[in-house]
Amino acid sequence: MSEPILSHRFSNGLVLVAEPMSWLESAAFTFLVPAGCAHDPDARGGLSGFTCEMALRGAGSRDSRRFIIDLDNLGIDRSESVSNAHTSFSAAMLAENLPRALEIFADVIRRPHLPEEQIEAGRQVMFQELRAVEDEPAQKLMIELRRRHYPDPWGRPSQGEQKALETIGIEDVRDHFRRTYRPNGSILGVAGHFDWQRLKDDVARLFDDWPTAEVPTLTEKSAGPKYEHLDYDSNQTQIGIAYPSVPYRDPDYFQAWGAVGVLSGGMSARLFTEVRERRGLCYSVHASYHTLRDRGGVFCYAGSSADRAQETLDVILAELARLAEGIEAEELDRLKARIKSALVMQQESSSARSSSIARDWYHLGRARTLGEVEELIDGLSCRSINAYLAGHPPGDFTTVTLGPGRLEVSGGVS
Amino acid sequence: MSEPILSHRFSNGLVLVAEPMSWLESAAFTFLVPAGCAHDPDARGGLSGFTCEMALRGAGSRDSRRFIIDLDNLGIDRSESVSNAHTSFSAAMLAENLPRALEIFADVIRRPHLPEEQIEAGRQVMFQELRAVEDEPAQKLMIELRRRHYPDPWGRPSQGEQKALETIGIEDVRDHFRRTYRPNGSILGVAGHFDWQRLKDDVARLFDDWPTAEVPTLTEKSAGPKYEHLDYDSNQTQIGIAYPSVPYRDPDYFQAWGAVGVLSGGMSARLFTEVRERRGLCYSVHASYHTLRDRGGVFCYAGSSADRAQETLDVILAELARLAEGIEAEELDRLKARIKSALVMQQESSSARSSSIARDWYHLGRARTLGEVEELIDGLSCRSINAYLAGHPPGDFTTVTLGPGRLEVSGGVS
Repeated sequence: MSEPILSHRFSNGLVLVAEPMSWLESAAFTFLVPAGCAHDPDARGGLSGFTCEMALRGAGSRDSRRFIIDLDNLGIDRSESVSNAHTSFSAAMLAENLPRALEIFADVIRRPHLPEEQIEAGRQVMFQELRAVEDEPAQKLMIELRRRHYPDPWGRPSQGEQKALETIGIEDVRDHFRRTYRPNGSILGVAGHFDWQRLKDDVARLFDDWPTAEVPTLTEKSAGPKYEHLDYDSNQTQIGIAYPSVPYRDPDYFQAWGAVGVLSGGMSARLFTEVRERRGLCYSVHASYHTLRDRGGVFCYAGSSADRAQETLDVILAELARLAEGIEAEELDRLKARIKSALVMQQESSSARSSSIARDWYHLGRARTLGEVEELIDGLSCRSINAYLAGHPPGDFTTVTLGPGRLEVSGGVS
Repeated sequence: MSEPILSHRFSNGLVLVAEPMSWLESAAFTFLVPAGCAHDPDARGGLSGFTCEMALRGAGSRDSRRFIIDLDNLGIDRSESVSNAHTSFSAAMLAENLPRALEIFADVIRRPHLPEEQIEAGRQVMFQELRAVEDEPAQKLMIELRRRHYPDPWGRPSQGEQKALETIGIEDVRDHFRRTYRPNGSILGVAGHFDWQRLKDDVARLFDDWPTAEVPTLTEKSAGPKYEHLDYDSNQTQIGIAYPSVPYRDPDYFQAWGAVGVLSGGMSARLFTEVRERRGLCYSVHASYHTLRDRGGVFCYAGSSADRAQETLDVILAELARLAEGIEAEELDRLKARIKSALVMQQESSSARSSSIARDWYHLGRARTLGEVEELIDGLSCRSINAYLAGHPPGDFTTVTLGPGRLEVSGGVS
């Protein structure tokens, strides 16, 4: 059912990438701006998120209230998020409203008011998001694990730090906006029902005169310690283990990804079976792949009662060691079946596709159709994955625990 | 784009209702079994959920492990939930796998093993769900509000009670299964890509010999007190206000629903504007419609700092009083725009449609196409909604607060 993906690079560097899904009545876009939290200044953790929050409080000819009313009038379902590399503005709508939605977001991205009188209201929203993480030990743990696995600034949390959020002023927000909102490095992914020529013209009119800006440099620091325990008063212990892996653009990516799928994809996967089903050690256990442009990681999580935490950790480390010995044909078959379903579901969602093609472009400089992804996955074999695993056994683990007491990190480390 | 909805009632009472979406490659079903938590025995709150959890641990020729592997092999994305009236089994998949998925779930629904040796594992899952609610004050509050707004057993929480969950044994589960899993009262909603004749034959083969069972009777008790404060050590106060409204099958339903949409739908709605935007009283405030078959309610929520809780409550009650005075044309226009978008998105999702048509059948004895729903919404006018509101002003409030101190419930009560 899928049609070819279209793209256009404007002279200021902005990339438009679009997938026609002409059988839909909806359209969606994902606008990636290179304003990720890796660019937060050292004592201003959370500034990218704060800037995004403020950009939504009036832009162009609209004040904050008019902005909300106009979006509601168009029936636009929007969301924003901040990752290490990007601030992302996403919206889904009736196809006929796509041009007007792009007009509104051109104001948000290029001409936000960043109004001083709303900075305290914006700060409260940021505090709320930070608190939501603090109240959720599992999420808190994974944030601390990512922070230690990657060298700074690659592992920073987008929520920022309480202290930094308290001190951020409107000039910080405005400086950050000027420094990081720029067309070179921005990618606009569109999917759904649209006319390509009209879309390209609209985007040209709205963004062609957006001036290219300097790319800020980032300095890499060292990563965190290999094991850290964070004291937390609870009878549960949260366990996180991370190890390095290849990024999405690496030719071996799908081999590495397939191995993680066998470890933790679906309920018949190894971690769930060994840790939860066979031993009843915990309620939740999983591993997931995370990729930046130039490096990646596998992040494992388990939450268990404190008295069974050591056993849980040992079993996970043993499973990671066993993964290096290879996977079996029927495990790979199940993975392929699950992924084939997931790809078809994604093909039916304009929001999911707009986000996928924008992210593809960031990582690869082009977008893959779902047909291409399916071929890559069909091409995986036990032999190819096992060859990869033999050369790249899980190891060099970073471990973080959160709970009443430290654990012993031993067996399974390669 | 929508096609007519098909249906068939089998002689044992089971209803199959199906919406063809032939442009999709996926299919989804929602199987409503009349095993809702209203049927939990008095000292066994949570038994419906527990029975559902146990039904997934092996059925027909499959043990618990085989069940999981077979679902993964078919790439089935499944979920279960328990409401007041139903236990619901939902699954989405590639269209070609629909017949095999139905086969698996026919075993779950008719021939579960309910294995004694897994009851402790099942109990842990139930505890975990209960704890998830206890850890989330906003959710906890809304559960307590619903319990007091509706006369028992209509307001019970599906998560049950700690004490009851501790004492449930395998015989309780088996009795409950025999009593509540039956074809009369069951509704199977299917949406997506399928062949109607083949589907009807498959369902007949799997379910036609499922014997009709007696319908258990329920005894209604009285509702809770009109105001209750629950002490909770926090500097936040959670506020919940409910008032009675008509159920989905009432001819006035869309008038009542439209009024609630003006109160709390989208970011430009009244509650968000008055409570959060203008006064900055709290981070989150909303109202939502809830409907059982024979009665409904509007449930309002706000979370605020304890020192501003009284003002938050007063402003919400004032907004409820003001609602009775009527809504304005531009508020209704915005609501219609938002809903039109939402309906189109729903039309693109087989999962959403399978669930909607099954629930429609429960409430109405037939399913509405999205085209019909759109017409009903187009037919709403300020005049019709205001006439309804004049005759049915919000009132007879039930209020629950959760936080460090009681509040004064006064103004706005009609």
